[in-house]
Amino acid sequence: MKLLEQRILQDGIVKEGNILKVDSFLNHQIDVNLMNEIGKEVKRLFGHKNITKILTIEASGIAAASIIAQYFNVPVLFAKKAKSQNLDGDLFTSVVRSYTYGKDYTITVSKKFLSEEDHVLIIDDFLAVGSAMKGLIDVCNQAGATIEGISIMVEKGFQEGGKYLREAGYDLQSMAIIDKMEGTTITFREE
Amino acid sequence: MKLLEQRILQDGIVKEGNILKVDSFLNHQIDVNLMNEIGKEVKRLFGHKNITKILTIEASGIAAASIIAQYFNVPVLFAKKAKSQNLDGDLFTSVVRSYTYGKDYTITVSKKFLSEEDHVLIIDDFLAVGSAMKGLIDVCNQAGATIEGISIMVEKGFQEGGKYLREAGYDLQSMAIIDKMEGTTITFREE
Repeated sequence: MKLLEQRILQDGIVKEGNILKVDSFLNHQIDVNLMNEIGKEVKRLFGHKNITKILTIEASGIAAASIIAQYFNVPVLFAKKAKSQNLDGDLFTSVVRSYTYGKDYTITVSKKFLSEEDHVLIIDDFLAVGSAMKGLIDVCNQAGATIEGISIMVEKGFQEGGKYLREAGYDLQSMAIIDKMEGTTITFREE
Repeated sequence: MKLLEQRILQDGIVKEGNILKVDSFLNHQIDVNLMNEIGKEVKRLFGHKNITKILTIEASGIAAASIIAQYFNVPVLFAKKAKSQNLDGDLFTSVVRSYTYGKDYTITVSKKFLSEEDHVLIIDDFLAVGSAMKGLIDVCNQAGATIEGISIMVEKGFQEGGKYLREAGYDLQSMAIIDKMEGTTITFREE
C-alpha cells in the first residue's frame, strides 16, 4: 500500500539491528486518518469473505484492529498477555516466544468470545518471525474457529514469519513488506 | 449515557469484591458500534475545546481512544507500561500503583509526542481510585501540556478517583458512573 510505504519512508527511523521505529504514526502515537485508509484497503482485500470477528493482541495491535473492525461491522477481540500464572479454566492460552525481551509469555483469550462459528481476520501491527501470530493461530485452532485471513501493517520480509504463513496456506496480506533495510535505506517488496 | 448504562445492565457481570466484568463489549471484546456512539457523545461534550491529542494508556484504553480520536481528527498517543528498568532519556515516566496486582509499574511516553503546545483529552476505560489517571496527568504536567478534559467509559463512583479529579478542577466526563453494586444490582448516578 503506497500510502503506508510513503509514510514509512517519511517518518520511519531505521536503527541498528534491523529495528524500524514507526512510533510517530503506528504503534505509540497513532495517525487515525492513515489507519482509516488502511481499514478501507483491508476491507477491499477481505470484504468478500464472511468475517465475524477481528482478533489481535495487546497492546499495539488494538488501535489498527479497532479502526479496521469498523469497516467489517464486527467486534474486535484482543488476546491479553497473562499477568499471573493463576489463569482460570475459561481461557484459551498459548505460549509465545518474545525475541525482543528474550523470554516466553502466555496469551489468553476468553472461551466465551471465540468459537467454531467464528470466521476470524487476524490483525497485527508487525510481523517478523511470527511468534505472536503463531499464538493467535493456536488460539483460533483451539476454539475451532476458521481463520479467513491475516493482515499486517508492516511485515519484515527478510525474516521468516511471512514466508512460513504463506507456505502454510494462510491468506496473508501485509500493507507494507520490507525486504531490506541498509543504513537508512528501506527497500519494499513490489506489490 | 443511557446507551452504555443499558449495555452494562444487559451484559455486565458483577463479581465479588465490587468487580464489574464488561469484557464482552468494552475491554477484551469491543463493540465498535457502541464505541462509535460513545465517540459522538465525547465529541458533543468536548467538541468546543481545541483538542490536539488524545492520550490513553495500554492496553484496554486504546480501542476507545482510537475510535474517539476519529471524531476529533487528532492523533492518539498511548502511554506504555515499561518492560524494563533501562529506559532511555527521551521518555516522560511516572510510577503507577496497581491495586489489582498489588505492585507498582512505570508508564512511559516519548518526549517527541507530547509538548507544551498540546491540548490533551485523556481517555480510559475505567476509573476507580485513579492511580493510572494520576500517572497520565503527571506525564502531561512534565510535558507542560494543557489537560482540556478527561473522559472515562465506566467510573466506579463509590471509589475516590472521580471525586479527587473533580475537586482538583479537571473537566471529568464519565459515560457511566456506578454509585453502588450490591449482589447483581447496579445503581447508576443520575445524569
